[in-house]
Parts: sequence; structure tokens; C-alpha cells
Amino acid sequence: MRDVLSILIVGSEILDGRIQDTNSQFLAQGLDTLGYKLAHTLSCTDTISTIHQSLDFLFEHSSVVIVSGGLGPTSDDLTTEAIANYCKRQLVTDEQALDELRDLFSRRKRTFDPANRKQVVFPEGSTIVKNPVGTAPGFTISFSRDSELCHVISLPGVPSELALMFEASVPALLERMLPSPKPLAKALLRVFGVPESTVGRCVREAVGQADVVVSYRAKFPEVQVLFKGDSRELVLRQANVARSAIGPEFVFSDDANVSFIQVVHELLLKEQLTISIAESCTGGLIGKLLTETPRSSRYFLGGITTYANEAKTAILTVERELIETNGAVSHVVALKLAKNVREKFRSDLALSCTGIAGPEGGTAEKPVGTFFIGVAEGDRISSFQFFYPASRDRVRLYAAYVAIDLLRRRLAKLPLPPTVQSEATL
Amino acid sequence: MRDVLSILIVGSEILDGRIQDTNSQFLAQGLDTLGYKLAHTLSCTDTISTIHQSLDFLFEHSSVVIVSGGLGPTSDDLTTEAIANYCKRQLVTDEQALDELRDLFSRRKRTFDPANRKQVVFPEGSTIVKNPVGTAPGFTISFSRDSELCHVISLPGVPSELALMFEASVPALLERMLPSPKPLAKALLRVFGVPESTVGRCVREAVGQADVVVSYRAKFPEVQVLFKGDSRELVLRQANVARSAIGPEFVFSDDANVSFIQVVHELLLKEQLTISIAESCTGGLIGKLLTETPRSSRYFLGGITTYANEAKTAILTVERELIETNGAVSHVVALKLAKNVREKFRSDLALSCTGIAGPEGGTAEKPVGTFFIGVAEGDRISSFQFFYPASRDRVRLYAAYVAIDLLRRRLAKLPLPPTVQSEATL
Repeated sequence: MRDVLSILIVGSEILDGRIQDTNSQFLAQGLDTLGYKLAHTLSCTDTISTIHQSLDFLFEHSSVVIVSGGLGPTSDDLTTEAIANYCKRQLVTDEQALDELRDLFSRRKRTFDPANRKQVVFPEGSTIVKNPVGTAPGFTISFSRDSELCHVISLPGVPSELALMFEASVPALLERMLPSPKPLAKALLRVFGVPESTVGRCVREAVGQADVVVSYRAKFPEVQVLFKGDSRELVLRQANVARSAIGPEFVFSDDANVSFIQVVHELLLKEQLTISIAESCTGGLIGKLLTETPRSSRYFLGGITTYANEAKTAILTVERELIETNGAVSHVVALKLAKNVREKFRSDLALSCTGIAGPEGGTAEKPVGTFFIGVAEGDRISSFQFFYPASRDRVRLYAAYVAIDLLRRRLAKLPLPPTVQSEATL
Repeated sequence: MRDVLSILIVGSEILDGRIQDTNSQFLAQGLDTLGYKLAHTLSCTDTISTIHQSLDFLFEHSSVVIVSGGLGPTSDDLTTEAIANYCKRQLVTDEQALDELRDLFSRRKRTFDPANRKQVVFPEGSTIVKNPVGTAPGFTISFSRDSELCHVISLPGVPSELALMFEASVPALLERMLPSPKPLAKALLRVFGVPESTVGRCVREAVGQADVVVSYRAKFPEVQVLFKGDSRELVLRQANVARSAIGPEFVFSDDANVSFIQVVHELLLKEQLTISIAESCTGGLIGKLLTETPRSSRYFLGGITTYANEAKTAILTVERELIETNGAVSHVVALKLAKNVREKFRSDLALSCTGIAGPEGGTAEKPVGTFFIGVAEGDRISSFQFFYPASRDRVRLYAAYVAIDLLRRRLAKLPLPPTVQSEATL
């Protein structure tokens, strides 16, 4: 039991239900990927005595405890003090960290608030874990408990900071603290366009139990399938069997670090094509997604969101009669939007999206979740109808992904998705 | 400490990160609403010894532990056995529950699988908690530990079953197990535009310890401050003192259900004003945010994202010479973008945003994080310079919020934020 880890999440906002703790799962996945075993995850309120009691319980079963939360500058941030108290160390200011923090404030042209001094005070003998984005560094401290060597790794509770610091520092720290875990072979499939239950059934039917553990994670609108086992060959073989069973064109990436958007980013750069976007129900979301990656200016020229019908007519010159006859959510409007936005921006490609995100505005013929994606490539313009009834947020995100997926498929010369309900060309 | 509860989540799939535990937050919210205090939430793997150890730790600090998970029919479901072992009770089959389970299977036209017998075996002396939807009933058992009366409430891990059983049975069970909770008074302040450390300092300096517990949560780019105490009057008074100390114009909402975007939504509806947006570095994000709320079509006419400089000239008619002389990230370009997009959409108001989101593209004069927001209200057009160096994602989200905050402040007749670095008008 002693070569295992535990997680301690500190924060009263977890225990009164105000927020969903996602750090535990993030850390659990990260540790699992590195091959370490997790004994417990525990959440406790921000008081010195409960943090103390919690550490004491966890160190009965683990030799490393990763603590998240309570490193902020406010009075309810007591984690550092509680850890120092538990290891019987003094709290000391780290002068170098203080200089760096002052520096950060001056670079950001913010006045250094004395409250932030608290964030560079650590238990004596700590090693600092750098925070590349926020103001609170983390730290590690090693100490002896019942003559066994124990280690605390203390990280901030802000999920984005925790994630970056975990990736950058924790693997190397754990290597020094724990025996090397047996490296597990792994393969990942990242899927868009197939429901999780279908992905699960395909994989179950195709892949036997044989020494490969399969797990799933739905991160809307994406589904991830992870294969783990001792034999690298077997894991890769099973992942490939599963890829064929799901349909290889739905598997957009097998790299945890290459997102859906980055796949399209690389394709656009490789083909040296420019693009523009006409949006309606997505309100700008497709453009936002296509500009997430640095250097997206190499291909993304811009977009026009015509939310009001009058704007579709006035700005993207979709004839009023077309809208009156067919409705704004129709093949012909999607075609015109794609055609006209491409001409305006003089881009190689254009996408358009018009749909009903709800919760209002649906009709019997075009219920909430109906949307049309237009794709213009030079003078070839097509429109595709889809139906995905869900909450407003999900319809919008799903429609944006479908639009970008059509682009991905066109650039990678893959077939159209089977979710297309009907098709039209101009 | 003895009139508090804890939660134990049993399931290896939590500890290897395969699934996100949402039951803890559901239970935490439910208990908080009922007025009970939660000491810990703990997750452990499905083994008898770890469940045993976990219960022992939790009962040191709590008199009730709600256990979720491990009641299924498979071999890795060991919760009931572990609880019986912990309370030193025999396992006995509940004949009435067995009849009901057989009945359920025949109504669902499924063959009764002997494995399911396991689900109607309980520690001797248990009271059954009915499961209105699934096959696994829950149970409660009371026992003495160090001469104190302790209670386990064991519920299934399937979130939908847990939720129904919690609502139907747990409040009445807790009433018998614990002293009636004193209902807590609460007040919330949701803040944008002040760093968390400054919010914390303001609140600390203004609000004494006097019987009100203050907690903070940073949900970028927003900071939330929660006040809790026994006296409703005191809590509200302290929250109001804190509001004044932070600056009331930074507190955009005091309702957990009213988001930043919804506040602006209501203001735009109330004033019956329409709006359009010109974006650059935010790529469509401002438009996406302003269309999150149903019925945003009442005010949002549309937006134009001119990501490439040529598009700024060709589509939003910003003179090429202006861009060449001043740079695309400048007051004059922000002013022209706001002016021209408003004219194109014929909206009452317009916002524009041009900036350097990074990580590349910064200069000594205009480093990454520099952005300009234009605001057009009829013919009155102003531009405001800001600086917020951070990651690309954060610069973009922060800039979008600043743009919408300028709109909020204008509609609510509030002063300009102090983060404005310089100002220009057309």
C-alpha cells in the first residue's frame, strides 16, 4: 500500500456543493496514464484542523499526497499553513519567488497587493513548483512519518493552473518519490460524430477481454476510447480493430495533445487554403473555434454572423424572398450564405451554418436541433441538413463541430458523415 | 463535529479517472439545502478493506455517512459486505425485498438472474430504502461506535437512481438521525473586473469575523464571494458592506442563477436597444457569448469578424493607410470598426475589439495582452485601451468580457472601469 498516492481537495465550495470538483478526475486520469495507483481522493473544508486530520488519514495508506486548492491570497486559503503544521515546519517567505511575483505584477502593470505575499510563503525545506499562468506557485515537501518518508505535492485549485503545473512538473517529481511504475501500453482514439453508446457497442463487439482494458470518456461533443495493457503490440492491435469497427473516418485523432481543431488547423496549413465563415444560430462560435490555435491567421480571414434575417439580406445579400419562401433555416439560405461570404472575403473555402438552437423557434417541420451547413469550395457549393435535438448550448456546439468536421472530411478526402439527412447544391 | 455528515463514494472507476464523480456534488448540494454540514467526501476503490478503513476515518468526524456505489450484482460490488463487516453484523436476505425484486423482473419481462439475489442481502437490522427505478434497493443501519450512535445510509452509484432515492427518503432519515439543522442564511456577490486577491483584501478589511463565514471562488474571469451565517440580517448587512468595499459597479449579480451575460441580456431587453459586433482577435467569441441566452435575437443583429487586415479594409472599410500608420491594434481601428459595423447593421449600439491574443505578434510598444474596445452609441464613438497579459485563451475571454462589461456599464449608467489605460473618441 505504501507505493500508492492519494489526492486531497481542499475547499469549502466543494463540500457545500457550490462547485463540481473536476481536479480529482483530472489528476486521477493523469496518474493512471503515468501508471501510478491512487488509493483515495478526499475533499475537506478550508480549516487547519480538517486539513491536518485528512493528511493524517491519507498518509496512513499512501506515501505521496497531492493537495489541490487553498493556495490563493484570501483569508480562507489555509492549505500551506496546515501542511506546515502537519509536517512541523516553520513558514518562511521565499525571496526569489517573491521577486518573481513582484515582477509578474509589474509586467502585468498591476499594483502588488500585500495579500499576495502570502502566496510565496512555504513550509521550510519546500521545493517550489512553478506556476506558468497564475500567481500562486505550488510546492513539495518531504518529511518523515512513523519513520517512513512521506511527500506532499501542493498545487493550486484553479483547474487550468493545476493542469499546466501537473503536466509540467509532477511526472518528474513522482519519479523521485516513488518506485517506477510498470509502464502500461496505451492507445487512444478520439471520436466525433458517433454517440457514446454506439462507440461502446462497436468496441465491445470487436475487442475481446484479452489483456486490454478499455475505458471511455465523453467530453461533449467528443468521445474518447482508451486502451491499456501490458503489451504494446496487443494494445495497438486492439485499438486498430476498434478503429475499424467505429469507422476510421470518425477517429479524428489518436493523440491526447492533438485536438479536433488542431487537426483541421494542420490540414488547412498543409493545403494552404484560406477560409471564411457565415454564421447564424452559432453566433460566432465557429469562428471562435477556428481561431483558438496560434497562427490561425494563416488561413482564417474572418466571418460574418447574420443573426437577424434583415442582416442576412442587408449584409450577406440573401434575397428576402428566398428567406420568406424557404425560411432562414433552409438549404437555399445555407448555400447563399456560404457562397456570398466566400465572395466577400475572397477566401478559397467558406462554411455557413443556419439552424434552430432553441429552446424556442422550432416548428413541426423544422424542430429545435435542425441545422444546415453550407460548404463552398471555389464555385462548388453544397448544403447538408442535420438534426440534433438537445439543449441550446449543445445544439450550438454540436453544429459548430459538424461544420468543422465537414471541412476536415473535405480536406482529408473522407466520405460525408452518415448523419447527413439531405443535401443540396447551388 | 459529531452532528455532521460525510460522503463515501465507492468505485475503482473513479480512482483511475475513467468517470467523473457527480454524486458527491449532488449530495453536497442537497445536504447544504437541507442545512446540514458536510465534513468530508471520500472516494475509495471496491475492496472490503479500503471501504472498512474509509468508514472508520469518516466516523471519527461524522455521525452519519452516506455511501454511494457498489450495490450492483457483480463480483466487484462489495459495499454491503464491507458495511456489515464494519458494523459487525451478519448478512441476511430480506424476503420481502426478494419478492419485490422477482416481481420487478417479471414485470420487465426479464429472467431473474440469481446474481441479483445479492442485491436483497443486507446487514442484520437494516432498514431498506426503496429504489423506485433500479434493481438495487438501498439501506440504512445504525450501530454504536465508541459508545456513540452512528448511521450509514447506503445508496446506489447510478446518478439517476441516487438522485430519486435521495429526494424521496434521505431528508426524513436524517431528521431521525441528526439534530434539526439551523437553516443558514446566505448572500452571494459575483464580481468582474477586480482580481481575486483584491476582492479578498477589500472584503477582509470591510467585514469582521462576526458570525459570518466568507468564501471565495474564482471562475475565470469572474470572482464569487459567498457569505453564510445564522442571521439573515447580519449576512445581508455584511454582504452589503463588502459590496461597497469592492465597488458596487464591479458586482454584476448577487444571484447564483443570473450570469454576467444574462445581466446584459436583461439590460438590452429593458432598454429595447439592438447591437452589432466587430471582432478581430476574439474571432467570434463576443457574438457567441451575446447569443447564449434564448431570445437574444431581440437585440443581437449580428457581427463581423475581420481577422485579416485586408478584411478590415474590404469588409469593414477601415482605410488601409490607417492600419498601416497606426497598426490594426489601435484606438483608431477600434473606433472605425465600431462605427462601421453599427452603420452596416443599423443597430443602436456596436462594440468592437482588436487586440493581440498571443503567444506571437506582440511588440515592445504593444505586447501580448494589449487590446482596444470600441463602443458606438449612435454617433458617439469611443475606444478604450486595456492590457491583460495571459494565455491566448484567457486574453480572448477576458477581452470579450471587458467589451460586454463596457456595454453593461453604459446601459446601467455606471462609471468606466479603472482598468482603462487610455481613451479616444471619433
